[in-house]
Parts: sequence; C-alpha cells; structure tokens
Amino acid sequence: MTHFEIRPIGYVRSPYKEKRDAPRQGRLSDAVSEIVIDDQYIVGLEDVEKRSHLIILSWFDRADRTLLRATPPHEKIEHGVFATRSPNRPNPVAFSVVDLLGRDRNVLRVRGLDALDGTPVVDIKPYSPDIDSVT
Amino acid sequence: MTHFEIRPIGYVRSPYKEKRDAPRQGRLSDAVSEIVIDDQYIVGLEDVEKRSHLIILSWFDRADRTLLRATPPHEKIEHGVFATRSPNRPNPVAFSVVDLLGRDRNVLRVRGLDALDGTPVVDIKPYSPDIDSVT
Repeated sequence: MTHFEIRPIGYVRSPYKEKRDAPRQGRLSDAVSEIVIDDQYIVGLEDVEKRSHLIILSWFDRADRTLLRATPPHEKIEHGVFATRSPNRPNPVAFSVVDLLGRDRNVLRVRGLDALDGTPVVDIKPYSPDIDSVT
Repeated sequence: MTHFEIRPIGYVRSPYKEKRDAPRQGRLSDAVSEIVIDDQYIVGLEDVEKRSHLIILSWFDRADRTLLRATPPHEKIEHGVFATRSPNRPNPVAFSVVDLLGRDRNVLRVRGLDALDGTPVVDIKPYSPDIDSVT
C-alpha cells in the first residue's frame, strides 16, 4: 500500500524531558506545554485563539513502531495495540484534547498535553463536543 | 524538520465514493462503513471488539495539502485551516469517533465515519470518555 509523508508543522515545548517524566494521560495533569508552530504555517493559526479546546495530533518520534501488543499500566494482560493507548504502535500519531490558554503569534499555550519535549506536531483541529464526544 | 512515514494499516470500505457524496461530519450520519485491516496487523486488533467506541485516524489522500485557509460549510468567512475541520490541510489526518458494530477477523463494521471509499487508515484507538471528552 502507498506510504505517505508527515511534514511536522511545529513541535512541543513541554516539562516532560524523558519517557519516565510523562504522565499516563495528559488530560489528567495540570502541566502547561507550548506548541511552537513553524513560520510557514502561521497563517493556518488564524482564529484558533477563539476556541477553548483543541485537538492536537502529534508524532511520538521515540515510539517503537514494530509492537502489535501492549500491556496497559495497572493491567497484567496484553491486548492488541489497537485496543490500547500505548504510544508504541505502527503509526505513532498521538491524539490529545487540550485546553487552549492563549496564543502569542506562533506559540500556543495549552494544558492537558502528554507529549515529551521536542515532539513533532502533525495537526491542530478545533474540538467540537457535538461530533467528537460520546458520553 | 525531519519528515516521517505513514504506513497505512488498512483502508475504509464506505458508501461514499466521491467527495460530493460524503456527509459534512460522519457522526451526524447513520451510514455503516467497514475498516479492512491488512493481515500483517491483525494481531493488533485483539480485544478491539470489546470496545463500544473507537477513534479512527485516517489519511485523506485526496486532500489538498497546500491550503492554509478554509471557509467552513454555511459560513462566509475564511479562517486559518487549524481553526477548521477542513479535510484540506498540511497533514490530512482525519479524526473520527465511531460506534463499533462488530468485528469479523480483519474487518470492523462501524457507524459514524465520514471517509471516502478506499481511504487509508492510519491508526485505531479505544475511545475513553474520561480523557477524550470535554463537555
């Protein structure tokens, strides 16, 4: 099957420098991270600052892409990796819903991201409870 | 910045053959689609069938990656593309939350996907209201 090329639009500045520092899920943490967008994509940020919550897709560049099974934290049984949120998966695109605290030109300040410092950012979308939430 | 390679894990079989057929958002539609996973990734599906809702990341291979502004349906004003859900964006990774209707070996039947027939699938994750939902 054809392959496709991800061209990162920016990167994460975060307090999590190594894997052992990262929270199990960013939404369960209060830490503030920054998303730094490359100059060539700044136009794409226009009006992002009007949204309260954003979807951040990032690329876990330190993931192991060969693993197809994973054991979640606090469990003892392995599952297929697509039944888990393990960062190690064939295409390590991480999904996070974050609170947007503010935008300063090409820098977004967000809360709720669990990405390591330097993680490439793939995409940013406005979060919309109507279509993105199931409760 | 370094580029990364998406290697699709499968593709979508959907009733939407062309762009004009697709709903504005899949979650607002009742249509059933199938996700067909390549044999080499079947192990990764183990226990997926125990989940009621899944996150599907797909690659909109017919998108225009050069656009940085978009006008949403029913609006008249352009926004930066990262403030919209336009399929045309630098990295056209689509995010959908779907209802899982069933799994037959390497085929998942789902409701709520807005991907065109043949769209490559990038990743599947279990949906978890605790971390993925903001209301």
